[in-house]
Amino acid sequence: MSTHELFATRASRMKASEIRELLKLLDQPGIISFAGGIPDPALFPAEGFAAAFQTALGPDQQAQALQYSVSEGYVPLREWLVDHMRSIGVECGLENILITSGSQQALDYLGKLYLSPGDTALVGWPTYLGALAAFNAYEPRFDRLSINGNRGAAEYAASAGEGAVKFAYLSPDFANPTGETVDLRGREALLDLADELNCAVIEDGAYQALRYDGEAIPPVLALELARKGSIEDCRTIYCGSFSKTLSPGLRVGWVVAAKPVISQMVLMKQAADLHSATINQMAIDQVARACFDTHIPMLRRVYGARRDAMLQALQDHMPDGVQWTKPEGGMFVWLTVPVGTNGAELLARALDTVKVAFVPGGAFFPDGSGTNTIRLSFSNSNEDTISKGIRRLGEVLRA
Amino acid sequence: MSTHELFATRASRMKASEIRELLKLLDQPGIISFAGGIPDPALFPAEGFAAAFQTALGPDQQAQALQYSVSEGYVPLREWLVDHMRSIGVECGLENILITSGSQQALDYLGKLYLSPGDTALVGWPTYLGALAAFNAYEPRFDRLSINGNRGAAEYAASAGEGAVKFAYLSPDFANPTGETVDLRGREALLDLADELNCAVIEDGAYQALRYDGEAIPPVLALELARKGSIEDCRTIYCGSFSKTLSPGLRVGWVVAAKPVISQMVLMKQAADLHSATINQMAIDQVARACFDTHIPMLRRVYGARRDAMLQALQDHMPDGVQWTKPEGGMFVWLTVPVGTNGAELLARALDTVKVAFVPGGAFFPDGSGTNTIRLSFSNSNEDTISKGIRRLGEVLRA
Repeated sequence: MSTHELFATRASRMKASEIRELLKLLDQPGIISFAGGIPDPALFPAEGFAAAFQTALGPDQQAQALQYSVSEGYVPLREWLVDHMRSIGVECGLENILITSGSQQALDYLGKLYLSPGDTALVGWPTYLGALAAFNAYEPRFDRLSINGNRGAAEYAASAGEGAVKFAYLSPDFANPTGETVDLRGREALLDLADELNCAVIEDGAYQALRYDGEAIPPVLALELARKGSIEDCRTIYCGSFSKTLSPGLRVGWVVAAKPVISQMVLMKQAADLHSATINQMAIDQVARACFDTHIPMLRRVYGARRDAMLQALQDHMPDGVQWTKPEGGMFVWLTVPVGTNGAELLARALDTVKVAFVPGGAFFPDGSGTNTIRLSFSNSNEDTISKGIRRLGEVLRA
Repeated sequence: MSTHELFATRASRMKASEIRELLKLLDQPGIISFAGGIPDPALFPAEGFAAAFQTALGPDQQAQALQYSVSEGYVPLREWLVDHMRSIGVECGLENILITSGSQQALDYLGKLYLSPGDTALVGWPTYLGALAAFNAYEPRFDRLSINGNRGAAEYAASAGEGAVKFAYLSPDFANPTGETVDLRGREALLDLADELNCAVIEDGAYQALRYDGEAIPPVLALELARKGSIEDCRTIYCGSFSKTLSPGLRVGWVVAAKPVISQMVLMKQAADLHSATINQMAIDQVARACFDTHIPMLRRVYGARRDAMLQALQDHMPDGVQWTKPEGGMFVWLTVPVGTNGAELLARALDTVKVAFVPGGAFFPDGSGTNTIRLSFSNSNEDTISKGIRRLGEVLRA
């Protein structure tokens, strides 16, 4: 057996995410891309970051900015996050917060913390592809999380067989890939289920700040706090990210949870990469303090208009038999095309004939179902381009 | 069983590294610290970084600097690394290089790639604490790597029992914690052993550039390349880092290996944190191109003088019965004190009576042996402080 064969088994567990290949598509000339779920770079607070990095590299802070730092994260940023979490209904302390390299890293650590081979993770059907990739490394079984559904704890537990249900993962606000939001009743039902199953809840808040209309719904963690009184009694773990609001390229996210969970994740982080980049945490802290409160309303206006343009264009150009979600925020609209139409084939055809890109929906299902679905992102195109692209997509679907 | 108990077993596997607690010691007033193995922040190329971040956040590059990027890493930096690796005897291509968040992250991914519970990892006795922490998460057995020693492949294999020997890990140049270097004959013997065991070699090159005297010895990977002709046939995986040369706070390291290894690590990185911070890779690239060749000789002069000062002070002030290594580079001198003297107790005494800090050596042994050893770092103190601190330490040892 060669050295490489030694880990062939290990490697085959990890499904190659399609995101990387898709990012490459975006560089082709003339393509209208609704594929990547990425922010519009024209909206980055670049001047704020230029000032922040200049400060961090000035005489007072440079020694700290370029040096090793502690695994928990930069204290002033964690202090800002205590205030931020309070503003969305979550009362917590500094020791309940860990800075991670994007919320993706939090998902990896939570997989490592909770999952042994054969354990069950409850996820949406479809769900975020990156969560499936992160959890897959730890060889779980995925079961379909049915919120407000007709499956009770006993049924989940029976289905889990030998392995235990370790957590339910969800992105309750404007989820990737569907754009859908779990309503208040659904969040409460989820907490009931988690209590019955005695499992954790991983709440992915990546899009939480990007609401374009409708009333904000408290995070699942806020609802559990209201029930239990203290974060130390909560089973919900909140994963936040600056990637969709300030910059993904700096790789700064955070986790909020009971202290024992944070303590274990700090040890994991220390063993896995020591700490997230010091200077990036300092820059995010400065930019968040300077402009988070004005930057987010701007993003909501711009992305909200793009969402409107996409929904209008879908209304105008989609043939009968095509259905789509009406997201109140985030970056995505989810299309269900007639059964028998394959999303991957549709992508090949759309690229070839009208130069429109999107993500076939099948990749977001743990079992590879949902082949007649596609994900469209509206965040990185202006309204005219959105209208043109959706019109073209309508032509392909009619053909 | 509570939610927290669910992962108590998992958590107990991970030994809490002492590094974090030690970093806190450094902030106490009046302490002379030889504890942390950290670069002197006064030597960071801070002006170079200020210019580099300004460029990255200028109009031409800001959209790229703040955006998501590919998991493999920033292409110009990988191109610079192809040249750098060639300069130390390793001929490789762009596809043989992955950028990681420090070489610590490479160690974590390599543990994840190779180790299943019960597998054997061969490591030095003592070895880098962070490597033990990274590998420990995957529940291996550690066996003592004896270079130029009297153990053959059959003996290692027999000792491994049911599990296989998956890799040998070493830092061949000025290792943390001993400061010792593996000579040419030892490196060749290691390659023979790895061929016989059909296992990988993980070469940690964190201190490779910091040689103060003596002739450079080719990296293990360079020696294997000379044997086998192509990196695609090599089992050695080289982990590099900018932490000891340019800045640890940016968290930029790299891995060089055969393409199938890199491909698997790219998938892991994609699932675990998507990519290392885009802007940091751009900044490191610019600073490396601008000043790596002048910065390293400066570091060698300054750190070399500090090493000299420490060796002289040890000569002047240590009582009989204390032995120490004579490192040709790096940041560490390793002391063996008389059997019966406990390093941890000595630290408590040294802090209390003379305010001198260091790391007790026991933590660097997988089996907790080596209690009569201590690690001293000379990188972050000037010559006067080193002389004063070692004189005081001598007093404690005489007492």
